[in-house]
Amino acid sequence: MPDHAHLFARRIDQMRPSTIREILKVTAQPEIISFAGGLPAPELFPVAEVRAAADSALTKHGSQALQYGPSEGVPVLREWVAAEMGRRGVKAAAADVLMTNGSQQVLDLVGKLFLNPGDVVLTENPTYLAAIQAFQTFEVKFVPVPTDENGLIPEELPGLIRQFRPKFLYTIPNFQNPTGITLSAARRQTLARIAAEHRLVVVEDDPYGKLRYRGTGIPPVRHWDEAGQVLYASTFSKTIAPGLRLGWVVAPPEVFSRLLILKQASDLHTSSFDQLVAYFYLTQNDQVAHLARICRAYGERYGVLDEALRAAMPAGFTWTKPEGGMFLWVTGPEKLDAMELLQRAIGEKVAFVPGRDFFPADAGRNYLRLNYSNSTPERIREGVKRLAALCR
Amino acid sequence: MPDHAHLFARRIDQMRPSTIREILKVTAQPEIISFAGGLPAPELFPVAEVRAAADSALTKHGSQALQYGPSEGVPVLREWVAAEMGRRGVKAAAADVLMTNGSQQVLDLVGKLFLNPGDVVLTENPTYLAAIQAFQTFEVKFVPVPTDENGLIPEELPGLIRQFRPKFLYTIPNFQNPTGITLSAARRQTLARIAAEHRLVVVEDDPYGKLRYRGTGIPPVRHWDEAGQVLYASTFSKTIAPGLRLGWVVAPPEVFSRLLILKQASDLHTSSFDQLVAYFYLTQNDQVAHLARICRAYGERYGVLDEALRAAMPAGFTWTKPEGGMFLWVTGPEKLDAMELLQRAIGEKVAFVPGRDFFPADAGRNYLRLNYSNSTPERIREGVKRLAALCR
Repeated sequence: MPDHAHLFARRIDQMRPSTIREILKVTAQPEIISFAGGLPAPELFPVAEVRAAADSALTKHGSQALQYGPSEGVPVLREWVAAEMGRRGVKAAAADVLMTNGSQQVLDLVGKLFLNPGDVVLTENPTYLAAIQAFQTFEVKFVPVPTDENGLIPEELPGLIRQFRPKFLYTIPNFQNPTGITLSAARRQTLARIAAEHRLVVVEDDPYGKLRYRGTGIPPVRHWDEAGQVLYASTFSKTIAPGLRLGWVVAPPEVFSRLLILKQASDLHTSSFDQLVAYFYLTQNDQVAHLARICRAYGERYGVLDEALRAAMPAGFTWTKPEGGMFLWVTGPEKLDAMELLQRAIGEKVAFVPGRDFFPADAGRNYLRLNYSNSTPERIREGVKRLAALCR
Repeated sequence: MPDHAHLFARRIDQMRPSTIREILKVTAQPEIISFAGGLPAPELFPVAEVRAAADSALTKHGSQALQYGPSEGVPVLREWVAAEMGRRGVKAAAADVLMTNGSQQVLDLVGKLFLNPGDVVLTENPTYLAAIQAFQTFEVKFVPVPTDENGLIPEELPGLIRQFRPKFLYTIPNFQNPTGITLSAARRQTLARIAAEHRLVVVEDDPYGKLRYRGTGIPPVRHWDEAGQVLYASTFSKTIAPGLRLGWVVAPPEVFSRLLILKQASDLHTSSFDQLVAYFYLTQNDQVAHLARICRAYGERYGVLDEALRAAMPAGFTWTKPEGGMFLWVTGPEKLDAMELLQRAIGEKVAFVPGRDFFPADAGRNYLRLNYSNSTPERIREGVKRLAALCR
């Protein structure tokens, strides 16, 4: 077999397989209590309702449910999303909504639209690992925006914009992955104002916003964006199910038209069938009740995790207090090597993700990301017991 | 609304919306007889069988059918595809199969893997329009390989390789889009030998291979590729239904591992649900009979089209004689302007695609692509009558 490596594009040099991916392979064994993945709770997936929706899609749309469809997405689903955007505090028409393969594909399309090699992307630090991977495909540089327990500090942006001339800011304002931190309402308003003043494009990624289990909801940054600087992305992965791979982006017309061409070149369009299944699922079932059930479960699991950590973790460990979402972020003593801890943890049949890969810059070794959406309270308690024993 | 155009990546300058896309919008009206699209016949989609398959997927796999899945694809479907590759004359293991969103996404992933700005891609001339669009995203140059009625002429490759140092050759050996031409068996063997000798990577795109309605089947180029130079892509879009957006690529390990990372960064993975639906559809139904039905229908439609053209078209028009697939390619007199003809044709409620956009280089204006898979024999006869009248 010949080695084709000399033919590979430059971007390949920068890419490495995800550490998480490798960890997840090890931790997939059922006897391991895993805080490592980023999986929603499968026992809350509406399996029977999706089965009924698939039936409706094929009964009511017939062969059209299986035919090529518009690159923009299936019209009835785009209408539904536009109405949902209204419920989230964002005025949008169906024509502003581009359906994608999960919100992950929005990152690829946005990268294709804006990024030349050497361009700068501003991010929270740490940020979503797969966003780093998506943007790395375009050979960019990441510049972290200083962050605290209320999210990124918008007042730091003007200086960074002047110094680095970034193509855009990538931010996850709600229950961020990996930290669980939420950007405060005041900061969202400030961010929208600064984006308008400095013509900074903001890519607002909101996969978790509907998963709030305590505190008061805050509208998206896009809500305060009168200047049209914010592209808003979201997904059905956490509210219906991730296996359908359905997300969307809301963008102003001149951005939308280019994203559409890029979508078409990437894969023509997102599954017509899955889009119709989602549409019938959403319109045939009580979404408020369904989301309440998810939030109740995740809130309970978060509470159990937080309580177990408080009961068992030694001094020197602190962690975030998310009001929603799926992740909590642990900061250990400075000398902690989370990768080495993971090795020992796997020996005790408990797993998590070391935080280092989430930092596009300034990596620390003393961080752990804990997922609580995909474990029962019992397993969370037992898992923390084992983990805390290794930290002492 | 601000104009973000000054922030767009260089690749956007090269991109234009597809002319076909615009034409299809006009021709979607049911009163227009359209040879313009590239749609398979929806009346042959196995709607009831897909409904049963969706039921099986959710009954037998439960919530796992809706959960995040491996970026490689769903294991049982990869196994099925590996066995199918064997039936096509290609030895492949499930581990060699990467599932994608239609074969269109293979073009995006292959582009990401190999292409830097300024790189050269060899193609047939004309070639698949959306392949031009996919590779244009990477700011490449296209160099056409001389072609005749038996497909590309492999003996021309060594000179082109020396002169242009291409990253790869993109070819559609079976019932090519747009011409319907098939690469002969002898040329496939020569191509495999030349690819090995010159270490030329070949991207073999085979969406139509199963749609042969006359003549003898020829194995893929990959069948003769002992050197591991050929990446083979195919799709379920024409054999099950395109709306599921399911395709695949078979690649040697060191290429596979990079395509996998790129797939993960692009959209994590292809719909778990659609993959399982396809798997249950394929294993619960008689594929041989289903494909025979499609081939019979397309063969009949091709026959009607060819006969109608022979009866009505004036001198100076010639066309290809495809043995399968969905398209036929008409060459008009040199002075013909197919775009102008289309304007008049739409006035007479008949449509086709002018050939010019299919040429990555050396564009001619006197070509028409006619699709026959998506019209009944009656409409084909009437459509040709109207079209021929305009050509006289």
